[in-house]
Amino acid sequence: MPKLEPSPNCLFCEIVSRAEPAHVVAETDAALVFLDQRPVFKGHCLIVPKAHVETLVDLPRDALDPLMGVARGIAQAVLVGLGADGTFVAMNNKVSQSVPHLHVHVVPRRKKDGLKGFFWPRVKYASEDEMTEFAARIAAAFDPAF
Amino acid sequence: MPKLEPSPNCLFCEIVSRAEPAHVVAETDAALVFLDQRPVFKGHCLIVPKAHVETLVDLPRDALDPLMGVARGIAQAVLVGLGADGTFVAMNNKVSQSVPHLHVHVVPRRKKDGLKGFFWPRVKYASEDEMTEFAARIAAAFDPAF
Repeated sequence: MPKLEPSPNCLFCEIVSRAEPAHVVAETDAALVFLDQRPVFKGHCLIVPKAHVETLVDLPRDALDPLMGVARGIAQAVLVGLGADGTFVAMNNKVSQSVPHLHVHVVPRRKKDGLKGFFWPRVKYASEDEMTEFAARIAAAFDPAF
Repeated sequence: MPKLEPSPNCLFCEIVSRAEPAHVVAETDAALVFLDQRPVFKGHCLIVPKAHVETLVDLPRDALDPLMGVARGIAQAVLVGLGADGTFVAMNNKVSQSVPHLHVHVVPRRKKDGLKGFFWPRVKYASEDEMTEFAARIAAAFDPAF
Protein backbone atom coordinates (compact mmCIF):
# COMPACT_ATOMS: atom_id res chain seq x y z
CA MET A 1 0.00 0.00 0.00
CA PRO A 2 1.36 3.46 -0.86
CA LYS A 3 2.26 5.66 2.06
CA LEU A 4 -0.07 8.47 2.89
CA GLU A 5 1.45 11.71 1.78
CA PRO A 6 -1.30 14.30 1.82
CA SER A 7 -1.04 16.90 -0.90
CA PRO A 8 -1.31 20.48 0.38
CA ASN A 9 -4.65 22.11 -0.34
CA CYS A 10 -6.13 18.93 -1.76
CA LEU A 11 -9.81 18.73 -0.81
CA PHE A 12 -9.90 14.95 -1.02
CA CYS A 13 -6.76 14.53 1.10
CA GLU A 14 -8.48 16.74 3.66
CA ILE A 15 -11.58 14.57 3.54
CA VAL A 16 -9.39 11.47 3.96
CA SER A 17 -7.71 13.01 7.03
CA ARG A 18 -11.11 14.20 8.28
CA ALA A 19 -9.97 17.83 8.23
CA GLU A 20 -12.92 18.46 5.91
CA PRO A 21 -16.35 16.96 6.55
CA ALA A 22 -18.00 14.49 4.19
CA HIS A 23 -20.78 11.95 4.25
CA VAL A 24 -18.57 8.89 4.53
CA VAL A 25 -20.06 5.68 3.17
CA ALA A 26 -17.24 3.18 3.60
CA GLU A 27 -13.57 2.93 4.37
CA THR A 28 -10.87 0.35 3.76
CA ASP A 29 -7.12 0.46 4.30
CA ALA A 30 -6.67 1.79 0.79
CA ALA A 31 -9.78 3.79 -0.01
CA LEU A 32 -12.41 6.14 1.32
CA VAL A 33 -15.95 6.37 -0.07
CA PHE A 34 -18.13 9.44 0.41
CA LEU A 35 -21.10 11.10 -1.23
CA ASP A 36 -20.59 13.58 -4.05
CA GLN A 37 -21.93 16.93 -2.84
CA ARG A 38 -23.51 17.62 -6.22
CA PRO A 39 -24.82 14.24 -7.25
CA VAL A 40 -25.88 13.29 -10.75
CA PHE A 41 -28.42 11.21 -8.84
CA LYS A 42 -28.82 10.83 -5.11
CA GLY A 43 -26.49 8.19 -3.76
CA HIS A 44 -23.70 9.20 -6.20
CA CYS A 45 -20.49 8.05 -4.47
CA LEU A 46 -16.85 8.93 -4.95
CA ILE A 47 -14.19 6.31 -4.22
CA VAL A 48 -10.74 7.80 -3.61
CA PRO A 49 -7.40 6.22 -2.82
CA LYS A 50 -6.26 7.47 0.58
CA ALA A 51 -2.79 8.12 -0.80
CA HIS A 52 -2.72 11.19 -3.02
CA VAL A 53 -2.38 10.42 -6.70
CA GLU A 54 -3.74 12.58 -9.45
CA THR A 55 -4.92 10.20 -12.15
CA LEU A 56 -5.40 6.53 -12.99
CA VAL A 57 -1.98 6.21 -14.60
CA ASP A 58 -0.34 7.79 -11.55
CA LEU A 59 -1.84 5.12 -9.31
CA PRO A 60 0.77 2.40 -8.71
CA ARG A 61 -0.20 -0.82 -10.46
CA ASP A 62 -0.50 -2.72 -7.18
CA ALA A 63 -2.80 -0.05 -5.74
CA LEU A 64 -5.32 -0.49 -8.54
CA ASP A 65 -7.09 -3.60 -7.29
CA PRO A 66 -7.73 -2.35 -3.73
CA LEU A 67 -9.33 0.78 -5.20
CA MET A 68 -11.38 -0.85 -7.95
CA GLY A 69 -12.46 -3.64 -5.63
CA VAL A 70 -14.13 -1.02 -3.47
CA ALA A 71 -15.71 0.61 -6.52
CA ARG A 72 -17.16 -2.77 -7.54
CA GLY A 73 -18.42 -3.29 -3.99
CA ILE A 74 -20.07 0.13 -3.98
CA ALA A 75 -21.66 -0.60 -7.37
CA GLN A 76 -23.24 -3.64 -5.73
CA ALA A 77 -24.16 -1.65 -2.61
CA VAL A 78 -26.17 0.97 -4.54
CA LEU A 79 -28.05 -1.81 -6.32
CA VAL A 80 -28.86 -3.52 -3.03
CA GLY A 81 -29.13 -0.52 -0.74
CA LEU A 82 -30.93 1.92 -3.03
CA GLY A 83 -32.67 -0.50 -5.36
CA ALA A 84 -30.91 1.00 -8.37
CA ASP A 85 -31.35 -0.74 -11.75
CA GLY A 86 -27.77 -0.17 -12.83
CA THR A 87 -24.70 1.95 -12.32
CA PHE A 88 -22.44 4.35 -14.12
CA VAL A 89 -18.82 3.94 -13.02
CA ALA A 90 -16.38 6.54 -14.32
CA MET A 91 -13.15 8.43 -13.89
CA ASN A 92 -12.09 11.71 -15.46
CA ASN A 93 -8.33 11.92 -15.72
CA LYS A 94 -6.85 15.43 -16.12
CA VAL A 95 -9.45 16.79 -18.54
CA SER A 96 -12.83 17.48 -16.84
CA GLN A 97 -11.33 16.35 -13.54
CA SER A 98 -12.71 18.75 -10.94
CA VAL A 99 -10.40 17.72 -8.07
CA PRO A 100 -6.89 16.58 -9.02
CA HIS A 101 -7.01 13.54 -6.72
CA LEU A 102 -8.11 10.35 -8.46
CA HIS A 103 -11.76 9.54 -7.81
CA VAL A 104 -14.05 6.88 -9.17
CA HIS A 105 -17.66 7.98 -9.57
CA VAL A 106 -20.33 5.37 -8.89
CA VAL A 107 -23.69 6.78 -9.94
CA PRO A 108 -26.90 4.81 -9.29
CA ARG A 109 -28.98 4.57 -12.45
CA ARG A 110 -32.64 3.77 -13.03
CA LYS A 111 -34.43 2.85 -16.21
CA LYS A 112 -35.78 5.97 -17.90
CA ASP A 113 -33.92 8.24 -15.47
CA GLY A 114 -33.44 10.71 -18.30
CA LEU A 115 -29.69 10.28 -18.46
CA LYS A 116 -28.16 8.85 -21.56
CA GLY A 117 -24.83 7.25 -20.82
CA PHE A 118 -23.06 8.22 -23.97
CA PHE A 119 -25.15 10.84 -25.69
CA TRP A 120 -22.24 12.98 -26.76
CA PRO A 121 -21.86 13.57 -30.42
CA ARG A 122 -19.87 10.72 -31.85
CA VAL A 123 -17.32 11.21 -34.57
CA LYS A 124 -16.55 9.06 -37.57
CA TYR A 125 -13.28 7.67 -38.78
CA ALA A 126 -12.53 8.92 -42.28
CA SER A 127 -11.81 5.39 -43.48
CA GLU A 128 -10.97 1.86 -42.42
CA ASP A 129 -7.34 2.79 -42.99
CA GLU A 130 -7.56 5.63 -40.49
CA MET A 131 -9.13 3.28 -37.99
CA THR A 132 -6.33 0.77 -38.53
CA GLU A 133 -3.80 3.54 -38.05
CA PHE A 134 -5.31 4.64 -34.73
CA ALA A 135 -5.42 1.05 -33.49
CA ALA A 136 -1.77 0.60 -34.45
CA ARG A 137 -0.63 3.79 -32.70
CA ILE A 138 -2.31 2.79 -29.44
CA ALA A 139 -1.13 -0.81 -29.78
CA ALA A 140 2.47 0.32 -30.25
CA ALA A 141 2.24 2.42 -27.09
CA PHE A 142 0.56 -0.27 -24.97
CA ASP A 143 2.87 -1.80 -22.40
CA PRO A 144 1.23 -4.81 -20.70
CA ALA A 145 3.73 -4.42 -17.84
CA PHE A 146 2.94 -0.73 -17.22
CA MET B 1 -9.22 -16.84 -14.81
CA PRO B 2 -12.85 -17.58 -15.65
CA LYS B 3 -13.45 -20.13 -18.37
CA LEU B 4 -14.53 -18.86 -21.73
CA GLU B 5 -18.19 -19.53 -22.21
CA PRO B 6 -19.34 -17.45 -25.13
CA SER B 7 -22.85 -16.15 -24.83
CA PRO B 8 -25.01 -16.82 -27.90
CA ASN B 9 -25.59 -13.77 -30.07
CA CYS B 10 -23.23 -11.60 -28.02
CA LEU B 11 -21.39 -9.23 -30.35
CA PHE B 12 -18.43 -8.87 -28.01
CA CYS B 13 -18.08 -12.64 -27.53
CA GLU B 14 -18.01 -12.88 -31.32
CA ILE B 15 -15.29 -10.24 -31.49
CA VAL B 16 -13.33 -12.13 -28.82
CA SER B 17 -13.61 -15.36 -30.84
CA ARG B 18 -12.83 -13.42 -34.02
CA ALA B 19 -16.13 -14.45 -35.59
CA GLU B 20 -16.80 -10.71 -35.96
CA PRO B 21 -14.15 -8.28 -37.19
CA ALA B 22 -12.79 -5.47 -35.04
CA HIS B 23 -9.81 -3.19 -34.96
CA VAL B 24 -7.94 -5.01 -32.20
CA VAL B 25 -5.55 -2.88 -30.17
CA ALA B 26 -4.26 -5.30 -27.55
CA GLU B 27 -4.91 -8.70 -26.06
CA THR B 28 -4.03 -10.41 -22.81
CA ASP B 29 -5.09 -13.74 -21.34
CA ALA B 30 -8.04 -12.05 -19.71
CA ALA B 31 -9.02 -9.16 -21.93
CA LEU B 32 -9.38 -7.93 -25.48
CA VAL B 33 -9.07 -4.28 -26.50
CA PHE B 34 -10.58 -2.94 -29.71
CA LEU B 35 -11.73 0.37 -31.14
CA ASP B 36 -15.29 1.55 -30.58
CA GLN B 37 -16.93 1.77 -34.01
CA ARG B 38 -18.63 5.04 -33.07
CA PRO B 39 -16.00 6.83 -31.06
CA VAL B 40 -16.63 9.80 -28.83
CA PHE B 41 -13.17 10.78 -30.04
CA LYS B 42 -10.87 8.90 -32.38
CA GLY B 43 -8.88 6.31 -30.49
CA HIS B 44 -11.82 5.48 -28.17
CA CYS B 45 -11.10 1.93 -26.98
CA LEU B 46 -13.25 -0.74 -25.40
CA ILE B 47 -11.68 -3.20 -22.98
CA VAL B 48 -13.71 -6.39 -22.53
CA PRO B 49 -13.15 -9.48 -20.43
CA LYS B 50 -12.85 -12.46 -22.75
CA ALA B 51 -15.19 -14.45 -20.54
CA HIS B 52 -18.77 -13.30 -20.93
CA VAL B 53 -20.11 -11.35 -17.98
CA GLU B 54 -22.75 -8.71 -18.21
CA THR B 55 -21.80 -6.06 -15.67
CA LEU B 56 -19.11 -5.03 -13.20
CA VAL B 57 -20.79 -6.80 -10.30
CA ASP B 58 -21.09 -10.01 -12.35
CA LEU B 59 -17.33 -10.04 -12.91
CA PRO B 60 -15.72 -12.39 -10.38
CA ARG B 61 -13.69 -10.44 -7.83
CA ASP B 62 -10.43 -12.09 -8.93
CA ALA B 63 -11.09 -11.21 -12.56
CA LEU B 64 -11.30 -7.49 -11.79
CA ASP B 65 -7.61 -6.70 -11.60
CA PRO B 66 -6.62 -8.34 -14.91
CA LEU B 67 -9.34 -6.31 -16.64
CA MET B 68 -8.71 -2.97 -14.96
CA GLY B 69 -4.96 -3.37 -15.29
CA VAL B 70 -5.44 -3.43 -19.05
CA ALA B 71 -7.75 -0.40 -18.88
CA ARG B 72 -5.05 1.50 -16.95
CA GLY B 73 -2.46 0.41 -19.50
CA ILE B 74 -4.64 1.59 -22.37
CA ALA B 75 -5.20 4.92 -20.58
CA GLN B 76 -1.43 5.33 -20.58
CA ALA B 77 -1.18 4.14 -24.20
CA VAL B 78 -3.56 6.79 -25.54
CA LEU B 79 -1.60 9.47 -23.69
CA VAL B 80 1.68 8.21 -25.16
CA GLY B 81 0.49 6.97 -28.53
CA LEU B 82 -2.00 9.67 -29.42
CA GLY B 83 -0.64 12.56 -27.37
CA ALA B 84 -3.93 12.88 -25.49
CA ASP B 85 -4.06 15.31 -22.55
CA GLY B 86 -6.24 13.07 -20.43
CA THR B 87 -8.71 10.22 -20.49
CA PHE B 88 -12.28 9.38 -19.65
CA VAL B 89 -12.60 5.84 -18.31
CA ALA B 90 -16.14 4.56 -17.82
CA MET B 91 -18.52 1.64 -17.61
CA ASN B 92 -22.28 1.62 -18.06
CA ASN B 93 -23.82 -1.27 -16.15
CA LYS B 94 -27.32 -2.34 -17.27
CA VAL B 95 -28.75 1.14 -17.83
CA SER B 96 -27.35 2.81 -20.99
CA GLN B 97 -25.30 -0.32 -21.65
CA SER B 98 -25.47 -0.85 -25.41
CA VAL B 99 -23.99 -4.36 -25.46
CA PRO B 100 -24.71 -6.58 -22.43
CA HIS B 101 -21.09 -7.75 -22.14
CA LEU B 102 -19.03 -5.72 -19.68
CA HIS B 103 -16.85 -3.14 -21.43
CA VAL B 104 -14.64 -0.39 -20.12
CA HIS B 105 -14.52 2.70 -22.31
CA VAL B 106 -11.21 4.54 -22.52
CA VAL B 107 -11.73 7.81 -24.37
CA PRO B 108 -8.77 10.07 -25.19
CA ARG B 109 -9.45 13.63 -24.09
CA ARG B 110 -7.87 16.93 -25.06
CA LYS B 111 -8.13 20.30 -23.40
CA LYS B 112 -11.01 22.27 -24.86
CA ASP B 113 -12.24 19.26 -26.82
CA GLY B 114 -15.78 20.48 -26.27
CA LEU B 115 -16.78 17.59 -24.07
CA LYS B 116 -17.67 18.25 -20.50
CA GLY B 117 -17.15 15.18 -18.34
CA PHE B 118 -20.10 15.63 -16.08
CA PHE B 119 -22.34 18.20 -17.62
CA TRP B 120 -25.54 16.44 -16.74
CA PRO B 121 -27.97 18.28 -14.59
CA ARG B 122 -27.05 17.67 -11.01
CA VAL B 123 -29.63 17.23 -8.30
CA LYS B 124 -29.63 18.49 -4.74
CA TYR B 125 -30.23 16.62 -1.54
CA ALA B 126 -33.22 18.07 0.30
CA SER B 127 -31.22 18.31 3.51
CA GLU B 128 -28.15 17.15 5.36
CA ASP B 129 -30.38 14.54 6.96
CA GLU B 130 -31.35 13.15 3.60
CA MET B 131 -27.68 12.98 2.64
CA THR B 132 -26.88 11.16 5.87
CA GLU B 133 -29.69 8.73 5.18
CA PHE B 134 -28.43 7.93 1.68
CA ALA B 135 -24.90 7.41 2.98
CA ALA B 136 -26.23 5.07 5.65
CA ARG B 137 -28.30 3.00 3.22
CA ILE B 138 -25.32 2.43 0.94
CA ALA B 139 -22.99 1.83 3.88
CA ALA B 140 -25.31 -0.82 5.29
CA ALA B 141 -25.36 -2.60 1.93
CA PHE B 142 -21.59 -2.41 1.36
CA ASP B 143 -19.84 -5.74 1.80
CA PRO B 144 -16.06 -5.33 1.71
CA ALA B 145 -15.77 -9.05 0.92
CA PHE B 146 -18.16 -8.92 -2.07
